[in-house]
Amino acid sequence: MKPFGDRVADAVAATGTCAVVGLDPHLDRLPAALRAQFEGKSGMAYLEAAAGAVVEFNRMVIDGLVGVVPAVKPQFAFYEALGTPGWEALTETCRMAHAAGLLTIGDAKRGDISSTGAAYARAILDPDGPLGLDSVTLNPWMGMDTLDPWLGICESYGRGVFVLVRTTNPGSSMLQHHGSPAAAECVADALHTAGANTQGDSGFSSVGAVVGATAGEDAASLRARMPQAWFLVPGVGAQGGDADDAVAGARADGMGCLVNSSRGVLFGAGEEEDPAGAIAQRARAHAARFVI
Amino acid sequence: MKPFGDRVADAVAATGTCAVVGLDPHLDRLPAALRAQFEGKSGMAYLEAAAGAVVEFNRMVIDGLVGVVPAVKPQFAFYEALGTPGWEALTETCRMAHAAGLLTIGDAKRGDISSTGAAYARAILDPDGPLGLDSVTLNPWMGMDTLDPWLGICESYGRGVFVLVRTTNPGSSMLQHHGSPAAAECVADALHTAGANTQGDSGFSSVGAVVGATAGEDAASLRARMPQAWFLVPGVGAQGGDADDAVAGARADGMGCLVNSSRGVLFGAGEEEDPAGAIAQRARAHAARFVI
Repeated sequence: MKPFGDRVADAVAATGTCAVVGLDPHLDRLPAALRAQFEGKSGMAYLEAAAGAVVEFNRMVIDGLVGVVPAVKPQFAFYEALGTPGWEALTETCRMAHAAGLLTIGDAKRGDISSTGAAYARAILDPDGPLGLDSVTLNPWMGMDTLDPWLGICESYGRGVFVLVRTTNPGSSMLQHHGSPAAAECVADALHTAGANTQGDSGFSSVGAVVGATAGEDAASLRARMPQAWFLVPGVGAQGGDADDAVAGARADGMGCLVNSSRGVLFGAGEEEDPAGAIAQRARAHAARFVI
Repeated sequence: MKPFGDRVADAVAATGTCAVVGLDPHLDRLPAALRAQFEGKSGMAYLEAAAGAVVEFNRMVIDGLVGVVPAVKPQFAFYEALGTPGWEALTETCRMAHAAGLLTIGDAKRGDISSTGAAYARAILDPDGPLGLDSVTLNPWMGMDTLDPWLGICESYGRGVFVLVRTTNPGSSMLQHHGSPAAAECVADALHTAGANTQGDSGFSSVGAVVGATAGEDAASLRARMPQAWFLVPGVGAQGGDADDAVAGARADGMGCLVNSSRGVLFGAGEEEDPAGAIAQRARAHAARFVI
């Protein structure tokens, strides 16, 4: 399999956009017909019915994304909130996305070391494991040894990681901007080192970074520190970033950012007569904002 | 329900020890009779058989811990590595631990914000959610707003959190010791603020900290910054910390640390004729090292 950096570049080229879509199934915003499947239930019956509705919803979403965007990003929290049936829904969602030819980014924000880190890597990225995702988001707070369990799988199987460098939330500066150079810059330098020699023909490596869309002032300097990294950019739409901020970290040729929207694509302002059509339309509009 | 700080203090007083046991089911180290249930299988049959063996193993472990230690700490990674059946094994493990009267610490190291953070909190701590654990480990890299979704549940239901402040791995200093004051000290101060007014009669709050056992030099200064926090101390045994290091962060009266051992209790040097008896014996020895 090609290295991850090239796989992303190929998928972006094939769809002509660097927009990606988050699969964050907020239960209270699913279409009414799907909500009816679980509302009023409780306990395990609720979890199973809600997980079933999530799979139906994601199937509809994924159908509308084929050929439109290069990748989807399931947010693990929404599946874990549904317990065992939710984990099964996550598994089925990943299966559907891969079958549809979409790259997958597991938004799991894991970060652990040694045998524990290896167990997480097996859970999420290992092609012989239960999910077999193409990539994952990681948290660097425990140190760069949190990357070790993942990098071997990345190299062997064309997988990738996106490590949290700068996020968009109000409290993010406390640690990410701490010290001089800022802690986020230290992470950026360490990721550049970790990704060295993993880049493919596209010039992109297997070690990417999460760089929030409202961190425009930082994005260009982080790009200078990580010239080979794919940036995963959350925070467009519901989280307040605008389109120019979102691609502030792109290379000079415009490549380098994957711009995520979740709620902005999945959900309309109210009930919709044709949710599948509306989602597909919003996905095309999201893709059109980030044409490459 | 009593506040979490008091629930821990009561459980420590009842068992006379601040030792806790990690439920980290390394498949290759389970007793031979349990390994035989899944070895040679593959795919979903393997995952289901392995998850079944994990539940059997944990039942045996938990039976040996009742009245011996105050709490158990399931490490989520080992369950997630088994996919949906693993998540079911985690659920069943938590149920068994609660039924046995043991406090539970979910070693999940989650850290996310807003609706995503709320979904994780529902998944792990919420008594109406699928796991309903007593406490969880969290990662502060994204900022103190990662705590928000958890604190309301803590207050309403006597739950608690342990936030990663200082860990024991080789790479941990890069971020945790970055800047002056060190980033870990900033987290400590923020946790002290977050936990203010949550302490019960014991003087301990609902907002605890993970402080590794090989960080002896830091532990006393972190205690000064967080006088009301329970410290969760990993890293005894397999990770190299010694007993004095482990309690270096205790209050003057000796209280304040929960010292975890996982592999050191669960697994012997080789196959054992009576694994249940051997585990119970190692658990009593672990408890005896940390008598209060």
